[in-house]
Amino acid sequence: MTTDQFRTLGHELIDFIADYRDNIADYPVLSQVEPGEIAGQLNATPPEHGEDLSGLVEDLRSMIAPGLTHWQSPNFFAYFSANASLPSVLGELVSAGFGVQGMLWATSPAATEVETVMMDWLVDLCGLPGGFHSSSNGGGVMLDSASSAVLTSMVAARYRAVGHRSAPELRAYTSNQAHSSVLKGMRVAGFADEQLRSIDVDAEFAMRSDLLAEAMTQDVADGYVPFFVVGTVGTTSSTAIDPIAEIATIATEHGAWIHVDAAFAGSAAVAPELRPRVNSGLEAVDSYSFNPHKWLLTNFDAAAYWVADQHSLTSAMAIVPEYLKNAATESGQVIDYRDWMVPLGRRFRALKLWMVIRWYGAEGLRAFVRDHVAIAQELSGWVDEHSSFERLSPTPFSLVCFAHVEGDDRTQEIVEAINAAGTHYVTHTVLNGRYTLRVAIGSVTTDRTHVEALWRDIVALG
Amino acid sequence: MTTDQFRTLGHELIDFIADYRDNIADYPVLSQVEPGEIAGQLNATPPEHGEDLSGLVEDLRSMIAPGLTHWQSPNFFAYFSANASLPSVLGELVSAGFGVQGMLWATSPAATEVETVMMDWLVDLCGLPGGFHSSSNGGGVMLDSASSAVLTSMVAARYRAVGHRSAPELRAYTSNQAHSSVLKGMRVAGFADEQLRSIDVDAEFAMRSDLLAEAMTQDVADGYVPFFVVGTVGTTSSTAIDPIAEIATIATEHGAWIHVDAAFAGSAAVAPELRPRVNSGLEAVDSYSFNPHKWLLTNFDAAAYWVADQHSLTSAMAIVPEYLKNAATESGQVIDYRDWMVPLGRRFRALKLWMVIRWYGAEGLRAFVRDHVAIAQELSGWVDEHSSFERLSPTPFSLVCFAHVEGDDRTQEIVEAINAAGTHYVTHTVLNGRYTLRVAIGSVTTDRTHVEALWRDIVALG
Repeated sequence: MTTDQFRTLGHELIDFIADYRDNIADYPVLSQVEPGEIAGQLNATPPEHGEDLSGLVEDLRSMIAPGLTHWQSPNFFAYFSANASLPSVLGELVSAGFGVQGMLWATSPAATEVETVMMDWLVDLCGLPGGFHSSSNGGGVMLDSASSAVLTSMVAARYRAVGHRSAPELRAYTSNQAHSSVLKGMRVAGFADEQLRSIDVDAEFAMRSDLLAEAMTQDVADGYVPFFVVGTVGTTSSTAIDPIAEIATIATEHGAWIHVDAAFAGSAAVAPELRPRVNSGLEAVDSYSFNPHKWLLTNFDAAAYWVADQHSLTSAMAIVPEYLKNAATESGQVIDYRDWMVPLGRRFRALKLWMVIRWYGAEGLRAFVRDHVAIAQELSGWVDEHSSFERLSPTPFSLVCFAHVEGDDRTQEIVEAINAAGTHYVTHTVLNGRYTLRVAIGSVTTDRTHVEALWRDIVALG
Repeated sequence: MTTDQFRTLGHELIDFIADYRDNIADYPVLSQVEPGEIAGQLNATPPEHGEDLSGLVEDLRSMIAPGLTHWQSPNFFAYFSANASLPSVLGELVSAGFGVQGMLWATSPAATEVETVMMDWLVDLCGLPGGFHSSSNGGGVMLDSASSAVLTSMVAARYRAVGHRSAPELRAYTSNQAHSSVLKGMRVAGFADEQLRSIDVDAEFAMRSDLLAEAMTQDVADGYVPFFVVGTVGTTSSTAIDPIAEIATIATEHGAWIHVDAAFAGSAAVAPELRPRVNSGLEAVDSYSFNPHKWLLTNFDAAAYWVADQHSLTSAMAIVPEYLKNAATESGQVIDYRDWMVPLGRRFRALKLWMVIRWYGAEGLRAFVRDHVAIAQELSGWVDEHSSFERLSPTPFSLVCFAHVEGDDRTQEIVEAINAAGTHYVTHTVLNGRYTLRVAIGSVTTDRTHVEALWRDIVALG
């Protein structure tokens, strides 16, 4: 492809994306295709001859778009949002255009240094502990997902506890509301399921620190070694907030590594008034992560991950084969982010974050998060006032969890009817054994009118 | 950002990327900045107010580009290439513009189905065993890196051997030329370093299968359990080719999982005449991966990974929390790729591969790889004919490894002089204890003239 051909097709695709975003509400939010329907439209075998892609935009419109569930729709209330704001889309474009590898400082110094500065900007924007800033012993890195952050922390925690080895005596702890990535991480990292203790929660779905203390003490008495605790700020089911400060005190007594997973809710800390919910206790933890790709306007993947002690991470992860040795690394003056994560290769992810923060500014990011939190409080009020519905958990951020008073079947009918109609998309969870409708507010263009329309439809069905 | 603002800035950035690619040879290939030089140009703290990004292109040109090592330069001969062809850049753009999540079929059916079809297309394009096609018990998935493919295979192999648990009795095997990701994967997966046996190689740096057989037999006699073997097609140092068929026979006798890592060289299989070097023995292995993001014109990240038995992978990786349950998953008619990998979230990676294969066609991909292999054979001939240089390994693909006959210091001087001059970028390795200059041919726009110019400079220095 010549650069002239690239210009022509590139401009066409920029316009296609703009049109797609302009008209996104015309599609059913949850794709209505049947299994095999999209695959059946593609050739079963690859083309022998190349083509000029002049039909590409039409293919994207007619063949691909109907098979998408439209995460960027303002009517997307499922799971948690996956913000791909337009400045971040352009950041991804530039990053792909440069096509550099950031595995070592030397393989593209700007990729490493912009990333370090962006992670410091996030410390500042979110009011995080100074011990995560690159000027301290700690520092941050961009990973692909909060799942990888949990796994990475787990590996570093084990290394700190016993070095690299099978360690059946180790025990990890998290609440029964924690994300499935904790159990998955344990399995990947080579632990048996019974090495992860599931701690019960209080009425608001937050980990009971008294039960954590009991479990750890009992395990020590039984000859086990507590090495890792995952606290959650904003659980997936209901955005519950574990008592991080209490957890940290208990875990520290046992020398365990404390990781805090704030995948969705972490972005809320850009608003100072929300920081007490997000940041309390973080100064005492070993690692922390949240996903700007969920609620901070940056397209997937962009998971922010910090450690309080760089060395605890790099000593566990670094392997330097001959073909990666270079003068900059040996000088000790640079960061090689390959030693901060599981994969070796890495994209220039920080570019999109740089563009997002410059476009919105701190005030724009605060306004964005505040709007969603305010709308969620309103929706919570409407639910509370309505005799057919009952809220099943607090609303500390922008997720509202509720059910029909007539029970699970009725609630499930509503979820399914909403999604079949296609105007909005919501998903469910189970809280205290009850089938629960989740309304997760967080998409880039979602405002009060979209939530009002969803609520009208729910009420009509209920 | 309004869609009109997006159109304006988007067109500007498309043109910027075209200009960057047009003028890429004007930059020193290896960035010449000092540590801290890029970071020092960015504000230490984030902006309070947003801006219109009208200065962005100038910032990219004057502030970021000098801090890049230009992987897309035709004069990039370091490591292995990281192809970001222009069609793939546009694929990444569209993928970011859609902003969908492909973690479940239901979260965007097209993301899953296009991926399945593209992995089947690659089976066809590369002449891979039918047992990797989605119509069989096997199938493929796109991961971020070959490192993740190794780790994923290791976890599935352990699960097949002993379930999820600490397993100090298990032993894995790979050659002493294998990529560092094997040892890193072992550490992440919770093995001690001595659980990975490093097998010696022959004069061409290929694993000695007789020594593998000996090691496995001895380990069994000592009470250990062989569970995992990694064979490499195209090692990182010298693109050596392990004898996969022999390895598979030996490993199968012990019930061990066989993974083949062809990260760089796998792309060569698009040319039928090169398939004997790449594909021999693959019909007997459990998993296989190569990186279209290295040598198949698809920008990072795009690692192709196949297993011969889907169930062996998904049974090890699947965890289905309530909030991810859905009717499509329960129907058993769809693939949920989250169960094929470590992270949960996933981009619509297959879109760029679709665009690349459509643009180039099978014939274009074959021509691309063949050109590089042919140029590398020529360069090998020039090295062999020159009295000051000595080739240190065979050239089965497009990497040429050689040294100055006067020894390591002389070779290292040449590498450093080439990189300081900035016209080309090469890296080194160590083969049989000798400092070795690596010329890795594989960038999108590299042709014979670039390699000739590099060789002239090397000869002038040597």
